[in-house]
Amino acid sequence: MISPSPDRLGLLTDLYELTMAAAYFESGKSQDVATFELSVRTLPPQRSFLLSAGLEQAVEYFQNFSFQADEIDFLRKHSAFEGASPAFFEFLAQLRFTGTLWAVPEGTVVFAEEPLLRVTAPIVEAQIAETYLLAMLTYQTTVATKTARIVQAAAGRGVVEFGTRRAHGPQAGLLAARASYIGGCMGTSNTLAGFELGIPIYGTTAHSWTMSFEDEEESFRRFAEIYGPKTVLLIDTYDPAEGVRKALHLGLPFRGVRLDSGDFLENSRQVRKILDEGGRPDAQILASSDLNEYAIQTLVENNAPIDLFGVGTELVTSRDAPALSGVYKLTEIESGGRVRYTAKFSESKISYPGKKQVYRFSGPEGEYTRDVLGLASEDFPEAEGLLTPVLENGKRLSPPPLLEKIRERAAKNLSRLPENFRRLEDSDTFPVEKSASLQNLLEEVRSRYTLLPTGAGSKEKSS
Amino acid sequence: MISPSPDRLGLLTDLYELTMAAAYFESGKSQDVATFELSVRTLPPQRSFLLSAGLEQAVEYFQNFSFQADEIDFLRKHSAFEGASPAFFEFLAQLRFTGTLWAVPEGTVVFAEEPLLRVTAPIVEAQIAETYLLAMLTYQTTVATKTARIVQAAAGRGVVEFGTRRAHGPQAGLLAARASYIGGCMGTSNTLAGFELGIPIYGTTAHSWTMSFEDEEESFRRFAEIYGPKTVLLIDTYDPAEGVRKALHLGLPFRGVRLDSGDFLENSRQVRKILDEGGRPDAQILASSDLNEYAIQTLVENNAPIDLFGVGTELVTSRDAPALSGVYKLTEIESGGRVRYTAKFSESKISYPGKKQVYRFSGPEGEYTRDVLGLASEDFPEAEGLLTPVLENGKRLSPPPLLEKIRERAAKNLSRLPENFRRLEDSDTFPVEKSASLQNLLEEVRSRYTLLPTGAGSKEKSS
Repeated sequence: MISPSPDRLGLLTDLYELTMAAAYFESGKSQDVATFELSVRTLPPQRSFLLSAGLEQAVEYFQNFSFQADEIDFLRKHSAFEGASPAFFEFLAQLRFTGTLWAVPEGTVVFAEEPLLRVTAPIVEAQIAETYLLAMLTYQTTVATKTARIVQAAAGRGVVEFGTRRAHGPQAGLLAARASYIGGCMGTSNTLAGFELGIPIYGTTAHSWTMSFEDEEESFRRFAEIYGPKTVLLIDTYDPAEGVRKALHLGLPFRGVRLDSGDFLENSRQVRKILDEGGRPDAQILASSDLNEYAIQTLVENNAPIDLFGVGTELVTSRDAPALSGVYKLTEIESGGRVRYTAKFSESKISYPGKKQVYRFSGPEGEYTRDVLGLASEDFPEAEGLLTPVLENGKRLSPPPLLEKIRERAAKNLSRLPENFRRLEDSDTFPVEKSASLQNLLEEVRSRYTLLPTGAGSKEKSS
Repeated sequence: MISPSPDRLGLLTDLYELTMAAAYFESGKSQDVATFELSVRTLPPQRSFLLSAGLEQAVEYFQNFSFQADEIDFLRKHSAFEGASPAFFEFLAQLRFTGTLWAVPEGTVVFAEEPLLRVTAPIVEAQIAETYLLAMLTYQTTVATKTARIVQAAAGRGVVEFGTRRAHGPQAGLLAARASYIGGCMGTSNTLAGFELGIPIYGTTAHSWTMSFEDEEESFRRFAEIYGPKTVLLIDTYDPAEGVRKALHLGLPFRGVRLDSGDFLENSRQVRKILDEGGRPDAQILASSDLNEYAIQTLVENNAPIDLFGVGTELVTSRDAPALSGVYKLTEIESGGRVRYTAKFSESKISYPGKKQVYRFSGPEGEYTRDVLGLASEDFPEAEGLLTPVLENGKRLSPPPLLEKIRERAAKNLSRLPENFRRLEDSDTFPVEKSASLQNLLEEVRSRYTLLPTGAGSKEKSS
């Protein structure tokens, strides 16, 4: 098929995960049980919350993860693995995921430093997964979050995801279709997302359809004859006002028209007027072209007569914040029955030790009030623990949730986040505290590294 | 495998491509031969040139493109296709790419409005390909271009691509590894890119390796014992100065150290000094963490003693310009032996008619001086035509070029672009003129649309 193909899961990882795997093995540590947590270090300045997405693909990764013979052969012959013994490659050939996965369900509102998932497994299994998990979770979370903002700005008008062509490759287009559906889009233009995931698919016509006819009106007539009242006509190939007049002149049913260029406020008003005067107050207007949450907000505030927004580039690339600082950190390790908590103290990249849980507190109306990031062993009876078990001994604990249910959870979660914490700009920061136990554990771990008595040490040196 | 999977090529397209396909078929136009061209409408403000990449995957798409029975079944039952006849679905089942593809070779410097590829084929075959081609070409071109800027900033020091974890999904990570190698990276951390594409792969260790040991020095010792003089030690888990002292204290061979946080200028100087005083002036320093062309340029200008840069997020997401305005436009259509040239006049989205060629002129030293965007039928004997034939009757005309050769072409192309046209900031605009014949053809097409006598027409209405 198309090369390079992303379906060789064992090798779809950074080389150092595999050289470390060999080193763990050669050091007799391959049966140490490690816990890693995936979180976003800080939110981009343009974001006040995240909407989690991508867990289902992470679960599929764990369930399908293995090394094929030709892949192991490649590693065996690669100079990077000269230090590894033949036994390591036999170990790799048998390697499957046998561990435990806890995760925040998809469609959950989360914040910086809160684990989206927690993997507890023999260290090699948990280590190798880092690269794939980060790419899958952070991208879908990026898109679901951006979608939530766009859908919020649309204030009840429909938003359709039109972005595959501008996504970072074809798979990104598919993943964006999924994540944007979770985030609140009514559907996607991506046909394969309809086939594989059951997401509603939508489409109109392109300029090429119109241009393939000598006469624009003829192009409209042919399409409306074939597709009847489902037809949405693209009217701006030459001039939108003339385009909509031609559509009305046909005397054929059509559902609506699409504007793909120009000043949407001005043009939508003009087109609406022509449609209304032409006896089609029911005909919808769809606008698409470089839309984002800010542009949509302005159009909505100005009562632009637009019924549907088609959003592509800005949504699938999350253009203003195309990456999240996703990290996957070792938080504890169990070796020979003894647990050791781990943290790192690199400048502005501290990680917190121990298996954690996100404790979410709500007010009387169900509104989210604050989170406590604490140890999994703590107990906050009034709070909901966001992380729940998904895999045990490598096996799913329950069937995958329906995408529709995930989408409903997302809408519900967003509605429970008070408006002041999800404004498009100048939003308040949702309060996330670290529990006293977590803080104490960090200091305990820190005290083990006597060469660096306080976190200020390295900062002073480099300031 | 992991769902959604991007390997069902027929459906990996926008729904409207397929509803238009049905409408072309039902309108008796399916044997009309269309020419579409893919180009970038305008360069992002942060870019003064593009480095083309992704063609090989476009070719593979055309060679593998087809619809499977279950996919056709999905379409047949979908309400969007109620207007299509049974004959259309039989037609789809037989559909293969039988057309002609001309393209700019990968690793070529190109500018706005210049076609990266030109497809001439029965209109359905050419139309459906739009979505996939745009996603594949524009993403790889985005990354190759960003890489060229980063490598230029590094001024001869090595750059390794470390970004899969921050890419827009796993496939984007692989595509980024490929495109960044074309753009001048010395290799990637992505193991699968090594396996599938033969790209050199690199890795060091992660903080988790160090943290999995009680003692940092012990973690260094174990790694160096296994990997010997290839070892690159990550020294900033707790404190970089202490880290490098521990590395020296081992008395074991290691190749270098990695810094992944903090002030790189300050820290690299300190670490260099410690290494030199410790008798290891040959040990290399690798820096990674949120690097881009601007940060690298500053480090290089300040003579930071950094030998290698690991670049991830900024490169694979092209963070400052994560999308290109890629378009795929119908430029002519042949029906019943008669050719008609097509253009669109949407506000600020004009497209130019006719099969085009990019004519590149060079000076006496081989330096690029200007381009003329003209009709393919024109003749500029002193210029090089950038578009060359790749597929004819759906068949490859020559074997795929080696990735190494593409990478060499990229380096050569970049060296021929005078420095003033590729400055990181405030670059001059490379001169691209439209030929008189092309301009005349546009006006001829425009004159057919008498309702809109000049391009100014629709602009006035919306201003």
